[in-house]
Amino acid sequence: MVIKVYGPAYASSKRLMLCLAEKGIEFEPVPIDLFKGEHKTPEFLELQPFGQVPVIQDGDYTLYESRAIIRYYAEKYKSQGTDLLGKTMEERGVVEQWVEIEAHNYHPPILDMTMHISFASKLGFTQDEKLINESEEKLGKALDIYEKRLSESKYLGGEFFSLADLSYIPMTEYLVGPIEKEYMIRDRKHVSIWWDEISNRPSWKKIQQL
Amino acid sequence: MVIKVYGPAYASSKRLMLCLAEKGIEFEPVPIDLFKGEHKTPEFLELQPFGQVPVIQDGDYTLYESRAIIRYYAEKYKSQGTDLLGKTMEERGVVEQWVEIEAHNYHPPILDMTMHISFASKLGFTQDEKLINESEEKLGKALDIYEKRLSESKYLGGEFFSLADLSYIPMTEYLVGPIEKEYMIRDRKHVSIWWDEISNRPSWKKIQQL
Repeated sequence: MVIKVYGPAYASSKRLMLCLAEKGIEFEPVPIDLFKGEHKTPEFLELQPFGQVPVIQDGDYTLYESRAIIRYYAEKYKSQGTDLLGKTMEERGVVEQWVEIEAHNYHPPILDMTMHISFASKLGFTQDEKLINESEEKLGKALDIYEKRLSESKYLGGEFFSLADLSYIPMTEYLVGPIEKEYMIRDRKHVSIWWDEISNRPSWKKIQQL
Repeated sequence: MVIKVYGPAYASSKRLMLCLAEKGIEFEPVPIDLFKGEHKTPEFLELQPFGQVPVIQDGDYTLYESRAIIRYYAEKYKSQGTDLLGKTMEERGVVEQWVEIEAHNYHPPILDMTMHISFASKLGFTQDEKLINESEEKLGKALDIYEKRLSESKYLGGEFFSLADLSYIPMTEYLVGPIEKEYMIRDRKHVSIWWDEISNRPSWKKIQQL
């Protein structure tokens, strides 16, 4: 049975679809329109009680939280497609570390910038210039640390592409695209090389075409 | 070699020490005083470039981010002490889901309340009543969902204690302790039973005595 992915238009859903694409796992996107409140209907809340996307349905198995889902498929299909976890438990530990860093130090400032730069007028709230500037500053500090890390290893998790890198792609797309801050990537030599490398993977081209 | 845990006075460090205690793994706490800026010294930034606690050193292996660390030890010592991951990949998926939910829906509102109720005067910023109220509202909504979940299964991950439950203990300690909102737990029958159950584990008693 083909896996259903609810909520495909957003970064967190793309994170998980990208994982499925790397593993060569077939899936069916099911669009959930947040602007129409489709994530708050009784049917959707049955699937995901917090009213958040994405959610997967894989036969009778339902799971939410994109980073829990990518771990599940990376482990379940470890030997199929790209190995996204590393060869040893120590390598996996480092991969997990950079996935967590993405969740806490990268995703939040880019999300704040995206909301205030791209969606403030659409959603009818006032653009908060101070928050945008503070987010850019926070993100810049994180990117300086990535720059150092990527001067020492080809990818964030080590010498192999993994969940650590994959996790960053959808939010970086917002950064270099709609919020127009590609210079934050390009001003940092190793981050820039890394971004070219990971964003040119066939899996990501496939997700962008959906 | 005994594992060194840097930063033991805070919730995220307790999350990881609790995991080590459940697995019966010896460790040595290394206090890091954030009020004295010990997390921003050049030596500490060599260990953890973001200047955040906790960090572990296990021989020549260094790892940070508490949730990455608990996964590493839960997997590495799967058959030692309490199994914290579940028996199948599907069970582990659900455990990971509730660990992620803690990180995004539980930890942040309690952290905001803790900062503004317990630390505002100590750190010299103005207590934000609006933020406190919004955080309590957010947390209440999450707790209503936990209440439903815990009416259907004994623990968050299923019928077994796991990383899913363990992850919640340190922040709940803030909630029922210094910020004095134990009623948020006690007003919900199944959450209340669950809290009594998990907070009475010998591992947690041990960590509290440190």
